[in-house]
Amino acid sequence: MNNSIAQSVVQTLEKVLSKEKDSIALHEPVFNGNEWQYLKDCLDSGWVSTAGKYVDVFESKLAEFTGAKYTIAVINGTAALQLCLKLVGVGADDEVLMPALTFVATANAVTYCGAIPHFVDSEESTLGICPEKLEDYLCETVEIKHNECFNKKTGRRIKAIVPMHTFGHPADLDPLSQICKRFFITMVEDATESMGSYYKGVHTGNWGKASALSFNGNKVMTTGGGGAILTNNEYIAKKARHLSTTARLSHKWEYDHDCVGYNYRLPNINASLGCAQLEQLPEFLNKKRTLVDRYRDVFEDVDGVSVFTEPDFARSNYWLNVLLLNEENIVLRDEILEQTNRQGIMTRPVWKLMHRLSMYKNCPRMELHVAENLEKRLINIPSSVVLNGHN
Amino acid sequence: MNNSIAQSVVQTLEKVLSKEKDSIALHEPVFNGNEWQYLKDCLDSGWVSTAGKYVDVFESKLAEFTGAKYTIAVINGTAALQLCLKLVGVGADDEVLMPALTFVATANAVTYCGAIPHFVDSEESTLGICPEKLEDYLCETVEIKHNECFNKKTGRRIKAIVPMHTFGHPADLDPLSQICKRFFITMVEDATESMGSYYKGVHTGNWGKASALSFNGNKVMTTGGGGAILTNNEYIAKKARHLSTTARLSHKWEYDHDCVGYNYRLPNINASLGCAQLEQLPEFLNKKRTLVDRYRDVFEDVDGVSVFTEPDFARSNYWLNVLLLNEENIVLRDEILEQTNRQGIMTRPVWKLMHRLSMYKNCPRMELHVAENLEKRLINIPSSVVLNGHN
Repeated sequence: MNNSIAQSVVQTLEKVLSKEKDSIALHEPVFNGNEWQYLKDCLDSGWVSTAGKYVDVFESKLAEFTGAKYTIAVINGTAALQLCLKLVGVGADDEVLMPALTFVATANAVTYCGAIPHFVDSEESTLGICPEKLEDYLCETVEIKHNECFNKKTGRRIKAIVPMHTFGHPADLDPLSQICKRFFITMVEDATESMGSYYKGVHTGNWGKASALSFNGNKVMTTGGGGAILTNNEYIAKKARHLSTTARLSHKWEYDHDCVGYNYRLPNINASLGCAQLEQLPEFLNKKRTLVDRYRDVFEDVDGVSVFTEPDFARSNYWLNVLLLNEENIVLRDEILEQTNRQGIMTRPVWKLMHRLSMYKNCPRMELHVAENLEKRLINIPSSVVLNGHN
Repeated sequence: MNNSIAQSVVQTLEKVLSKEKDSIALHEPVFNGNEWQYLKDCLDSGWVSTAGKYVDVFESKLAEFTGAKYTIAVINGTAALQLCLKLVGVGADDEVLMPALTFVATANAVTYCGAIPHFVDSEESTLGICPEKLEDYLCETVEIKHNECFNKKTGRRIKAIVPMHTFGHPADLDPLSQICKRFFITMVEDATESMGSYYKGVHTGNWGKASALSFNGNKVMTTGGGGAILTNNEYIAKKARHLSTTARLSHKWEYDHDCVGYNYRLPNINASLGCAQLEQLPEFLNKKRTLVDRYRDVFEDVDGVSVFTEPDFARSNYWLNVLLLNEENIVLRDEILEQTNRQGIMTRPVWKLMHRLSMYKNCPRMELHVAENLEKRLINIPSSVVLNGHN
């Protein structure tokens, strides 16, 4: 690839993307359903805050859609993940395995629990944690004592692992589950990017003992800001609901709380938006598949770059589409980012890897060759539902 | 007071409150302004999440209303308070002085910082921290070393104090500020209940180095869920904005973060509601003053109970109105709560005092006679804006 090929990437993107707008966002929401009606109903009823019928409806519709037995709607994906970790027993000075290739919230949620992120490598076929490398690494790094996993170097307990479904693409959950069993590690899925993504026919978020969803404005569907905890464990569900409502004990008028809780429940007004968005999600997901099909079509003719495609076992929501540069073309990543953004087509590289961030640079980690390689080669391209690929 | 007087409290409340509804809430919101228009504008523009013009407008209107130089809108009052404490330098193992008579979020926010609540007593004239008792207590309890305040018993630093403006009534901020200077303690105001309340002509939240507001659904004005940080310190304002947006460094496309941040910004959709509510706030405050005037009128004839009135130096928002039983009538508190709630008039006692909650029972504290006495005598009565007192 050379500069002219960088140019051809831009031209190929332009083929797909409407030029009616001055700038094309990476991911913007669509509100063509019952959003109006439900918001108005909130105002008319006076219920806009952390109690109200839309919170209940949203939770039950989410459970239905994802197949998870229990869902608890909260203020955002980070809060959801923090509570998930706390609820599976992650505490001060525990280590939590997670990909180095993730958004910073995954590591922050661990830090809020007083625990330490421990970074592991990814695999190119899923963009998620590589089960094979992980297993080899754990064999060398940990010892099992009384059915708990300890890092031999640091002496700290490794309590949990957080597979993150990168850009909506499911990590390879079956082998990861096997590893969890073998090494006595609890799985919490960071499914904040994978609402509408399935692994072997089952919605993501059903493998973790508890899992986190996000409905931020840039996600497949949005509540403004919001998230949810998914779990199939009744005790965790009850406790999640309790912790997210300041741990207040039920009473007609008394304000008693039995532990340190959080003010994390999703307001009714945001839940009402979520109800309307969830109704449209199947249509959103279809449109997003049309878009990636179109991207694949047009990039077939461009040498040195490929469009990331879900593995056979997955059905991805294709939240953010991914271009991968071939090894020999790594040097042009920044040029492509420059040219596309200059022309109003928003693109971006993957997040700075976690072990390069100043506050996480001293955390334990395995060697991270694949993540570091992907970081150099990966570009996210516009992926909104409105870009149906045939403008 | 005897049972028949309990009955007369109920009858007196009924005089003021409309009986058109089956039940009368403690505080419900009103949406008679531009709420619908602004919400619609959010949907039409596609901006519903943590960026958007309503967040900016809301912040600037809040600054104008409160007189604080800087405001940062966040997801709720608890998050605001947590960030305030962090920003003034409260860290692990510090102690933070606060009233035992407060909502649990005050103590929780301290706990989230790894710090320890240290409970102090209240005074009946403000329902807030008693400056006189506090000063005597500090003289006995602390020592100053290198311009820092240390608890002689625990050895821990006392970094901050959090006056809470109970039910909207300003604590006595001037003497508290003097004490802060003398003992090298930083003030953070928990102004989550006092939007629209003034101390000596200046809006609450301007005495603390940073202060927290709340716009929960039960407050004087609401954003569904939401809060804000007020500060007159430019550095703290910048840092608050940074920390509340995952500490991301500004860049066209890179995702770099320079410290552990939070996902705490208020979504645009909630801010739009706040803009509409803020426009109506002066009217809300007037109506609430009419209501408390009416309460005072009717309760003048009832022996053994009085309606709490702001001290001369304050102009309170009268968020939640307060009935105080005379000493000799303490025994009838629960009977009045029972009778009113049974008849659909929602009332409640003050929150269980912090030092009685299981997770805070071992925290340091002074003797708390006034708070404990108020707990036995205090009843909150319906205070919504819609109850104009002349039904």
